[in-house]
Amino acid sequence: MGAAETSGRERFDLGDFLLESGEVLQGAFLIYRTLGRLSPARDNCILLPSYYSGTDASYDRIIGPGRALDPARYFIVLTNMFGNGVSASPSTLTNSCAGAGFPKVTIRDTAAAQHRLLSERFGISKLKLATGWSMGAMQSLHMAALYPDFVERVLAVCGNAKCWPLNQAFLEGGSAALRADATYEGGCYSAPPETGLRAFGRVYAGWAYSAEFFRERLYEGLGYADLEAFLKGWEDDHLEHDANDLLAVLHAWRHADAGKALADITARTVLMPCDTDTYFTVRETELEAAEIGHAEVKVLHSPYGHCAGAPGRFDTEAREVEAEMLRILAD
Amino acid sequence: MGAAETSGRERFDLGDFLLESGEVLQGAFLIYRTLGRLSPARDNCILLPSYYSGTDASYDRIIGPGRALDPARYFIVLTNMFGNGVSASPSTLTNSCAGAGFPKVTIRDTAAAQHRLLSERFGISKLKLATGWSMGAMQSLHMAALYPDFVERVLAVCGNAKCWPLNQAFLEGGSAALRADATYEGGCYSAPPETGLRAFGRVYAGWAYSAEFFRERLYEGLGYADLEAFLKGWEDDHLEHDANDLLAVLHAWRHADAGKALADITARTVLMPCDTDTYFTVRETELEAAEIGHAEVKVLHSPYGHCAGAPGRFDTEAREVEAEMLRILAD
Repeated sequence: MGAAETSGRERFDLGDFLLESGEVLQGAFLIYRTLGRLSPARDNCILLPSYYSGTDASYDRIIGPGRALDPARYFIVLTNMFGNGVSASPSTLTNSCAGAGFPKVTIRDTAAAQHRLLSERFGISKLKLATGWSMGAMQSLHMAALYPDFVERVLAVCGNAKCWPLNQAFLEGGSAALRADATYEGGCYSAPPETGLRAFGRVYAGWAYSAEFFRERLYEGLGYADLEAFLKGWEDDHLEHDANDLLAVLHAWRHADAGKALADITARTVLMPCDTDTYFTVRETELEAAEIGHAEVKVLHSPYGHCAGAPGRFDTEAREVEAEMLRILAD
Repeated sequence: MGAAETSGRERFDLGDFLLESGEVLQGAFLIYRTLGRLSPARDNCILLPSYYSGTDASYDRIIGPGRALDPARYFIVLTNMFGNGVSASPSTLTNSCAGAGFPKVTIRDTAAAQHRLLSERFGISKLKLATGWSMGAMQSLHMAALYPDFVERVLAVCGNAKCWPLNQAFLEGGSAALRADATYEGGCYSAPPETGLRAFGRVYAGWAYSAEFFRERLYEGLGYADLEAFLKGWEDDHLEHDANDLLAVLHAWRHADAGKALADITARTVLMPCDTDTYFTVRETELEAAEIGHAEVKVLHSPYGHCAGAPGRFDTEAREVEAEMLRILAD
């Protein structure tokens, strides 16, 4: 990660943080970054929680002057979720919660920590918007469900409040592939389990896009010459991650479930699934919209599958998401 | 495999069999089974090639008196494809082609061997029907494409003549998961790579059905109490297979491509994809139908994904396939 991306990062210590499971995350902390200035009324805050294998830096390309996410107008808080290798994670802790000792953390836990960060450090009592892609959307929906008075608007891009069962099955496959590498040693590895990380990336790659993406060689637009280069690219990306971190966040994703709290959401809520997303499906997004009651579903029509919503990755889709963001922020 | 299933199996030796790749499959043989009697005009033969992880026994439950596949009317030939652990395979050969020495065999190779079996041993010059599910469909389409005069009708259930790129990506994931187990040792294992086989099964399981299948707990109808039991069931199923066999057949699937020969098909052709099949997609089946020109596409609407077409597994879907078979056999 370049200096530009990490500059401005700040730390919020949570001490020994009681988790939903009853376990304690010792020496818990969130690393976050802010852009823009909090208004005197503290009513211009937008939260963007990190997505799987992402960090606070992952949204940078959709933030800027004249954009929906304009630091001249909004106080933008970019958080790193527990386990992502930046905030308290298997790879960043040095106490008994490090490595294989990292407890089972959920999205509820991360939401609780983010709520404390925003309210205790910044005195914020209401977010203008909670948004994000994928697990970023999952976290924003959890914020709105668990702290209904705290969230005014939600824009959830390719992400649900619950990990539906097919999504669970998908994650189980990747996890099994990583753990099939005996050098993972139940998380007590001395060197990265490279073969397992590569297998994880290769399994994941098949799910992340759509049949059309592969058929029409749309990976060429991402700089890959052929399917094998694309799959190798996904393998390589996962070598940059710590295996325990990946599995810690995967656990949070796998067990995500805002449950009945979904009906408590008062925020204006827009859900943007992609019609070719293989694991955050349109149908299951519609089912959640029905549970929320007043949520709107705006389907992204795109061949990019789950990745259609990746911040700024694809122009047409990014414009559609940004237009939606502008629309709901204007109300 | 019980005695009932293997009784009646016969062997067709192909000697040193020249493969499409230029390699030779030494001591090649097909194991097959026949039901019914070949008519004097030799015009009542139906071919059912085995599917992935299946054998000649896998179609038994859709064959019987009064059924579309009635041995009183038809001479039914059930073949085991190369690599499936019954015909010449890594696990069944004892020469230098055994185990990790098994050459890269394609569906064209298996089709050529089946063509020899049918013409040389039985003097058949035209099949009444070539059908099958999944890789069985792939083989039947290859027979019709490569030997157009040889095949009168094709009914391809949830299978294409080509492994389209998303399908390839799916297979790459499972393969990587198996090989992530170091005890696989590049195919030179002394004991089965159990962890890898389990990971393979777990990766595969997420693809085989649909979001609705998982969401509505339709696995309960298959005897699994919950998602984890279902995933474990898929793991266990794969422990029964030899790893090299699985990867040999996976190679054939992964590289399947009838190519331009598709346009040579003269057989009356019906393609039955399932609308929730994640890797043999409706769209790609339609593209192949267009290449064939005169093929009909009859979509199975089912929550069972790729497995909707599994012979006799699901009543409604099985009835639909059988009705289609009766319809085209009647012409």
